[in-house]
Amino acid sequence: MATVYEATASAPVNIAVIKYWGKRDTKLILPTNSSLSVTLDQDHLRSTTTSRADPSFTEDRLWLNGKVDEITPGSRLATCIAEMKRLRKETVEDKDPNAPKLSTYKVHIASYNNFPTAAGLASSASGFAALVASLAQLYALPASPSTLSLIARQGSGSACRSLFGGFVAWEMGALPSGEDSLAVEIAPREHWPQMHALICVVSDDKKGTSSTSGMQRTVDTSPLLQHRIAHVVPQRMAAISDAIRARDFDTFARITMADSNQFHAVALDTEPPIFYMNDVSRAIIALIVEYNRLALAQGKGYKAAYTYDAGPNAVIYALEENIKEIAQLVTAYFPQRAGEFKDVLGLYGDAAKDINSEAKVPEGFNEAVAKRFEVGAVKGLIHTRVGDGPRRLPASESLLAPSGLPKTLA
Amino acid sequence: MATVYEATASAPVNIAVIKYWGKRDTKLILPTNSSLSVTLDQDHLRSTTTSRADPSFTEDRLWLNGKVDEITPGSRLATCIAEMKRLRKETVEDKDPNAPKLSTYKVHIASYNNFPTAAGLASSASGFAALVASLAQLYALPASPSTLSLIARQGSGSACRSLFGGFVAWEMGALPSGEDSLAVEIAPREHWPQMHALICVVSDDKKGTSSTSGMQRTVDTSPLLQHRIAHVVPQRMAAISDAIRARDFDTFARITMADSNQFHAVALDTEPPIFYMNDVSRAIIALIVEYNRLALAQGKGYKAAYTYDAGPNAVIYALEENIKEIAQLVTAYFPQRAGEFKDVLGLYGDAAKDINSEAKVPEGFNEAVAKRFEVGAVKGLIHTRVGDGPRRLPASESLLAPSGLPKTLA
Repeated sequence: MATVYEATASAPVNIAVIKYWGKRDTKLILPTNSSLSVTLDQDHLRSTTTSRADPSFTEDRLWLNGKVDEITPGSRLATCIAEMKRLRKETVEDKDPNAPKLSTYKVHIASYNNFPTAAGLASSASGFAALVASLAQLYALPASPSTLSLIARQGSGSACRSLFGGFVAWEMGALPSGEDSLAVEIAPREHWPQMHALICVVSDDKKGTSSTSGMQRTVDTSPLLQHRIAHVVPQRMAAISDAIRARDFDTFARITMADSNQFHAVALDTEPPIFYMNDVSRAIIALIVEYNRLALAQGKGYKAAYTYDAGPNAVIYALEENIKEIAQLVTAYFPQRAGEFKDVLGLYGDAAKDINSEAKVPEGFNEAVAKRFEVGAVKGLIHTRVGDGPRRLPASESLLAPSGLPKTLA
Repeated sequence: MATVYEATASAPVNIAVIKYWGKRDTKLILPTNSSLSVTLDQDHLRSTTTSRADPSFTEDRLWLNGKVDEITPGSRLATCIAEMKRLRKETVEDKDPNAPKLSTYKVHIASYNNFPTAAGLASSASGFAALVASLAQLYALPASPSTLSLIARQGSGSACRSLFGGFVAWEMGALPSGEDSLAVEIAPREHWPQMHALICVVSDDKKGTSSTSGMQRTVDTSPLLQHRIAHVVPQRMAAISDAIRARDFDTFARITMADSNQFHAVALDTEPPIFYMNDVSRAIIALIVEYNRLALAQGKGYKAAYTYDAGPNAVIYALEENIKEIAQLVTAYFPQRAGEFKDVLGLYGDAAKDINSEAKVPEGFNEAVAKRFEVGAVKGLIHTRVGDGPRRLPASESLLAPSGLPKTLA
């Protein structure tokens, strides 16, 4: 019986606190500024990918959530696969004549996201990270996560940050080749496991601007972006890295919110302007601003930090001890469908079936900062926390059947 | 019978196309950057003020829309009145011993806005301009509008621009005294009478941040504001002034929209962030962006320019020939209450009673750029045009009764 060359890996979602917005090289995906993210727990949100190399395969093929995803020549997908084959050849096969020539085989790749695309959570980051991680395992590469991040970056910029758990910087680099534009770990999850996140999935009426086209328009037209790149981000990268190392939530929160605001400010400074936040997003900001005002008045410092990517969803970072209070506050303004909330971290215990009954506004909170919304304005809450990097999964978790086709087709 | 020393003046609203946002001196109201506005026709929107000086008056008193408005010592109102009395003394009474000593008399002032405060149109600009204009007439001052603008500025920054008709720059000046921070005319209304405006009065759920406190927070916390002040506004002031002189609507529109966006961008870059536009404002932007895209595709250049002040209302500048098409487009997405629209410039003729029946989207317009809203989302449309500066009104228009109290009390 022939050896099966296959590997299955999972990779996490990451949510930036210093935002990546703007490329200086669109082909290599080299950013105009460094960025920094928190990796979320893949027990809750993850992409899983199985890669198999086989001499009988006639072409590279990929299925995403059970549906064929064409690998167009010259596409980002094709680039990542080609780069991984090149690494296999150079770092393994050229050095060991006995190593099987996997780089010459075609690959079949099946990938699956355990969260709905409709949730508006960037699935390209975890997706490309899982792709690269599974190929790295398949090819038995000696490469470090930072080296792999160079390749994941060429699939989707922010994917490079999903090759680490914990707190991750994507150093923009300076070389035209992109060799120094890679992800590095600022601190592992174990350094600050109290860092939790509450994701508010916000309904959206309209189709937004894709981040790929949006960020290029900003680069081309926003007079403010250049100032952000040259003068604001470098200082914030240093300050928030220090805050993470010192477990200084107060500083972490202040910078996180300022940088989310500034990213949306440069999007708005674009011609024509780009809007990702809507009235619901803005109401959540108003709640967090007031929640922090109260905490500051009580001498407790900032207790929550909102951040928004290229969409209306809010991700609220907070320490574990404050998450329930924040969830209760959000629920007071945005009632949830009964049974919708998955209480995976045991926030509510038995009451999780109807978290609306636990909705509560902290004493001293100015309730007039936002109006109360209808059920559905925030269509879901996801409670998660800082997580680890890509994982190697056992063969039993393979997404490919012995035939080399996905076990589940859409 | 004693002489009655009284004057009545009206003054227009102005809507900035290069935005004033940020003070370098909060007491003198010296701005961090120059700004530029279009004066709107006071046949439609105006403040009217009657000022009377009388030796029998025991204190300076003011009524706004028939309601007492306290003149607090040290307030902006008190400053403006004191400055006008000083000008009377220095430029008239000290030079002509026969001139009545009006500067020593107390004044009664009645002011009235013909547009509802609820409309969210900055009434402080027209209000302070009318105050200063009426006192200047009462005191028979030889002062030029630019000189008067120095005083109106100390009441409300943007009021200085309402002392001219047409297209008006407020030069920020450089002196700490503020002597060179004044309004100048770029072009009179007659230069470009085809410049019209359609104001979309947008409903707002929440109380916004006052512009006085908002702009100071931006000055204190926005890293992007300094770049705007130093590098963006000076270039835009020169370019839009040239565009006005050349009647180049295309350039005028492009800069107007970019500057509105950038003002809201620096508001968003503030800690905590300031939002003035809501989902309805954003939908109107989407309509204008698509309307211009279509016009550009047809080789016609930009045909409309939106601008938003510190509130959700849209002011759409356009040439007269395109206003009806724009009103029809807006009405297609934002149906109006029947009979609500005042067709003062004869846009619709007999059809003005129900402009919804005339709603229409231009051929080739991508209708998916915004959803259709319910009646009331845009609660009113006001069609107006570039207008003249303050007017002297006959005694018959006086707002004060012979008693020295307002004819109409609220």
